[in-house]
Amino acid sequence: MAEYKDLDRKVIKLGKQIVKMCTEAGSGHPSSALSLVHLVTALMYRQMRYDPKNPWNTGADRLILSEGHAVPVVYAAYCELGGVAGTQARPVTLKFDDALTLRDAASLLDGHPNPPVGFPFFDAATGSLGQGLSVAAGLAAAARLDACDKTVYCIIGDGESREGQIWEAVDFIVDHNLTAVRMIFNSNQLGQSDFVSKQQSPQALQAKLEAFGCDVRVIDGHDWDQVFEALAAPVGDKPLAIVAKTVKGWGVKELSKPTSHGKPLEPGQVEAAIADLDAKAAELGVTEMADVPAVELTTPSSVNRPAIVPISAGAFEDALRNVGWEAIIEKKKLGTRKAYGAALAALGAADPRIVALDGDVKNSTFAELFAKKFPDRYFEGRIAEQNIISAAAGLAAGGRIPFASSFAKFLVRGYDQLEMALITNANIKLCGSHAGISLAADGPSQMAVADLAFVRAFAHATRADGAPALRVFQPSDAISAFKLTELMANLDGACYMRTHRPDVSFLYDSEETFTVGGFKHLLDGEDLLIVASGYMVHVARKAIEILEDKAGLSASLIDAYSMPLDTDEILQVGDDCRGQILVVEDNYLGGIADEITAAAAASDLGVRVKTMVVGSVPKSAKTPEEILQMVHLSADEIAAAGQQLFDEAD
Amino acid sequence: MAEYKDLDRKVIKLGKQIVKMCTEAGSGHPSSALSLVHLVTALMYRQMRYDPKNPWNTGADRLILSEGHAVPVVYAAYCELGGVAGTQARPVTLKFDDALTLRDAASLLDGHPNPPVGFPFFDAATGSLGQGLSVAAGLAAAARLDACDKTVYCIIGDGESREGQIWEAVDFIVDHNLTAVRMIFNSNQLGQSDFVSKQQSPQALQAKLEAFGCDVRVIDGHDWDQVFEALAAPVGDKPLAIVAKTVKGWGVKELSKPTSHGKPLEPGQVEAAIADLDAKAAELGVTEMADVPAVELTTPSSVNRPAIVPISAGAFEDALRNVGWEAIIEKKKLGTRKAYGAALAALGAADPRIVALDGDVKNSTFAELFAKKFPDRYFEGRIAEQNIISAAAGLAAGGRIPFASSFAKFLVRGYDQLEMALITNANIKLCGSHAGISLAADGPSQMAVADLAFVRAFAHATRADGAPALRVFQPSDAISAFKLTELMANLDGACYMRTHRPDVSFLYDSEETFTVGGFKHLLDGEDLLIVASGYMVHVARKAIEILEDKAGLSASLIDAYSMPLDTDEILQVGDDCRGQILVVEDNYLGGIADEITAAAAASDLGVRVKTMVVGSVPKSAKTPEEILQMVHLSADEIAAAGQQLFDEAD
Repeated sequence: MAEYKDLDRKVIKLGKQIVKMCTEAGSGHPSSALSLVHLVTALMYRQMRYDPKNPWNTGADRLILSEGHAVPVVYAAYCELGGVAGTQARPVTLKFDDALTLRDAASLLDGHPNPPVGFPFFDAATGSLGQGLSVAAGLAAAARLDACDKTVYCIIGDGESREGQIWEAVDFIVDHNLTAVRMIFNSNQLGQSDFVSKQQSPQALQAKLEAFGCDVRVIDGHDWDQVFEALAAPVGDKPLAIVAKTVKGWGVKELSKPTSHGKPLEPGQVEAAIADLDAKAAELGVTEMADVPAVELTTPSSVNRPAIVPISAGAFEDALRNVGWEAIIEKKKLGTRKAYGAALAALGAADPRIVALDGDVKNSTFAELFAKKFPDRYFEGRIAEQNIISAAAGLAAGGRIPFASSFAKFLVRGYDQLEMALITNANIKLCGSHAGISLAADGPSQMAVADLAFVRAFAHATRADGAPALRVFQPSDAISAFKLTELMANLDGACYMRTHRPDVSFLYDSEETFTVGGFKHLLDGEDLLIVASGYMVHVARKAIEILEDKAGLSASLIDAYSMPLDTDEILQVGDDCRGQILVVEDNYLGGIADEITAAAAASDLGVRVKTMVVGSVPKSAKTPEEILQMVHLSADEIAAAGQQLFDEAD
Repeated sequence: MAEYKDLDRKVIKLGKQIVKMCTEAGSGHPSSALSLVHLVTALMYRQMRYDPKNPWNTGADRLILSEGHAVPVVYAAYCELGGVAGTQARPVTLKFDDALTLRDAASLLDGHPNPPVGFPFFDAATGSLGQGLSVAAGLAAAARLDACDKTVYCIIGDGESREGQIWEAVDFIVDHNLTAVRMIFNSNQLGQSDFVSKQQSPQALQAKLEAFGCDVRVIDGHDWDQVFEALAAPVGDKPLAIVAKTVKGWGVKELSKPTSHGKPLEPGQVEAAIADLDAKAAELGVTEMADVPAVELTTPSSVNRPAIVPISAGAFEDALRNVGWEAIIEKKKLGTRKAYGAALAALGAADPRIVALDGDVKNSTFAELFAKKFPDRYFEGRIAEQNIISAAAGLAAGGRIPFASSFAKFLVRGYDQLEMALITNANIKLCGSHAGISLAADGPSQMAVADLAFVRAFAHATRADGAPALRVFQPSDAISAFKLTELMANLDGACYMRTHRPDVSFLYDSEETFTVGGFKHLLDGEDLLIVASGYMVHVARKAIEILEDKAGLSASLIDAYSMPLDTDEILQVGDDCRGQILVVEDNYLGGIADEITAAAAASDLGVRVKTMVVGSVPKSAKTPEEILQMVHLSADEIAAAGQQLFDEAD
């Protein structure tokens, strides 16, 4: 095995650095990193077709480290290779000892893989486990669209493979025959608090992966011959999964104990660890060997991707005609979810970057309008929302603009995946249909009523460039849904749109424009301002009619379709309406209502804000009207609350 | 097969009712329901040991309908059986035609299984797919603790088995040898928008289930002999999974089409459907047969469960001694997560109803203090948070008080499961550790910063009894963590507690009491009120010292440890502090800050509220101080903001 002596030498060098960098950081996972030292060295010094000097090469192989806590081994290798980090505008060439900055506030080497912090070698923030394989699948799907034969390596922990999403990803990979993904299960048999279950043993993993339709190779993850044979195995009919048996804390006695997970050595223990690794070097016969480069990498050509240009969905009417809905133009009534589908189909025709995913509800979200026209760019995800969101993040990393849809309630399933995508700055677009309670009959298991509270948090957290980590949109009619879908396609970054089940009348002219942070002042009154969004705009309009008919009051109406919301002007409108604002929402507290109250509490205008939200856990009712009445959000009750607010102000 | 003629007759009767009730409702899933008509009839008329007149019998077999949309078949059967619904205080005996009230606002028969609406035959709200098997596992675990040999049947759709949580549940069932669960996969091979993937074919399901360690029987789900043989098969060494091949829309041509998912027949189509079923009856030779009862059920004895009595964790100091932490009593410094573990161990000793689950981080959440003392009542869930939360809901349905823990960030993974548990009114207690950003070094993949926004939504949604669907607690020191853990054990309903990584000084006397909605007025000043919770209380204290030292200002400090929060008195305190409130939080917008601003905007006091939250996506830093500085939440910056607020008011 003489031909691996240079790599053996490198493994010892990286092993020592892993120990040191975690001790220097005072935290980190050296034992997990050491279990991967041969696999990662094999990948990063030989197997991967990439150039450490250009992590932005679109044609290069990629590595997803799904078990993100093992990242010190990748950092150590990348620094040793003099890899480039930072941004394309401000690249930084790393040096060997930069690895020792691990976890520093000022370091590009974050505690877990975190590309936007300045480590573009990775495509996804990982560390919340079980998500990387889905991202790898998305990258492989994007590569296929690029007609690029890159390989996407994905390293998954054995304990991590307990996460159900791993199996969603394997199903997805097999379904779409994404053989460009090479799965590597790191079977060190130790979790954080205990040995892994026998359900995650190498034998169990092999049996499961085979049952899921993979070719499986079980190897010794510290044996170069076995490692390279598996990594370089030709692509077959089935996706290849490697189950690599490894030793946690390889080479360092203190870090090989079952209790060593996630614990760096104390400074006083480092010397003994170095001695352990020196003994390993002696055993391998590489003690006296010079620090040879060991690198044998080939750099693939970059891939030409579709140009980044503004994307037009064209005229609303044309989009309706294109999906056979001419009649709607006259009828002027259409559900927001249907307009989303029509917009998606129009966008797909306009730009090859647009791709879509859905979770077996494409005939409800209307993603099917896209799926039918662009089957190559549609990825059916079946009933597995977590995988869909992470796969979308992978497609985004591969240069595509993915629109992923399901019922808004089912997207809750993937909120951790969404958050990881937001940490990544992934350019994903989510559309949650049947939002709020207007779907009525199916009951609360299908109603998204807490989603706005969650996504609003991210709408107010900025990325490094100052943009919101997530832009949130709630169209109230088909035209705004159409225009906002187009807007999402053109925004750089993650967006979340809610659509609704019922068909509703058009509120806007098809030439209307919509913006991030925007709202529409739909009706102008002087006694009261009502703020609503989505389906509730229609209910609020009815309430305003009642107020006018019964009490002779005139109310302003604002359609607050965006978060973060530009609240200054809204407060001003409220101030002009006797300082009285009523916010109505068919979801729980935490959405638009709080957007307005937070602004009001911080302002000096002294406007008073009353909010009407879903205040109790809903149940089924046959119609939107019935369910709104049940939770005290009917037009009558909104009118009554408006009247009361007016009376109190008098 | 003469012995099944009564059941054949029943199947025809129920089939007709399924068609009618969905048409009457104008929505529903008759085709899925019909695919289960034999299996459900077999279970509910013969196989299950239960009494339809007493759904509260603690010793009875249970049925979890994980594919909740198929519920019309269960409702039809239960009504036909004259089953009892409603509540124990107000039981309602259903009649055959009550099934026709499906989805009515006033009906006990919700669109999907929804026990608290008044259908206690079910233990869990289902309809968001993939969760029922975990609940079944929890019920089986509870039954084992009851020394009860009940069987927990669980019906899962084939398309639904794409959800990764199903496989988390199978792992959990095998790990804990929960052979009381009998899994039934309904393999009708049709999803909503398409045929199911070949990855969910009967063959694939069989291979997967075998690889996961189950005994598998593949049967014809409309053949009585095969159905009963499988349902009644003796319990073996491995859990039994039945893959039942069925026909979607069984017996009704119009509902057997691939496009029939989730669509009721139009009123004009019902007659033809009835004729189809009459033809089936003729084929089966049961046309002329009287409507015989067909019921052959045995009722098991109820099980004696531990009495519902107040649970005391005892003295804080004793609890510390019991886990070997005497030294802490003098040191007066301990992390909230550690106090949680000590409390859990004390509660476990006090009451056998207390059980715990964790996701391979029990040495970080400190659930291990319980696990070591009560291994029979500890259920290691490994790295699979979705399953843990749903299994906790099952344990709660089985009369236990489950505490489930992981990093708060990883619990995000189970937010849909949490929401379904809240719809169920499940008595679960979640503890998310390492909340906020004070864990620093590991970076954003481990930081819960949006969790408060999500859980707050449920803290303001009431259950039928008027209590919040979720009570949220954020202890600031070990004593409050200890007392709040005890409080959670005694509350009827779901609770969510956040604990933190750092060791912090005691703020309270060990005799202090804490309440739902409560807060503590920790410091009394007159120039400004600062509201904080959790770790930030300590940072706010430092800020107040700075304000006093540098500017001679005196600030009040409130520890707002509870949501929903009693805000009236807090606003009053703010009013007494020159009407200036500063809220500081180390998480994104949507938590305590909004709790205060919402109250302020609705009040007439005219207090002004400034909020300081995490306004950008965080990254790693080595210490809490460094990361707080990075996001502008350091004590110095809080003091500066306080000063500014004071100056502006002047």
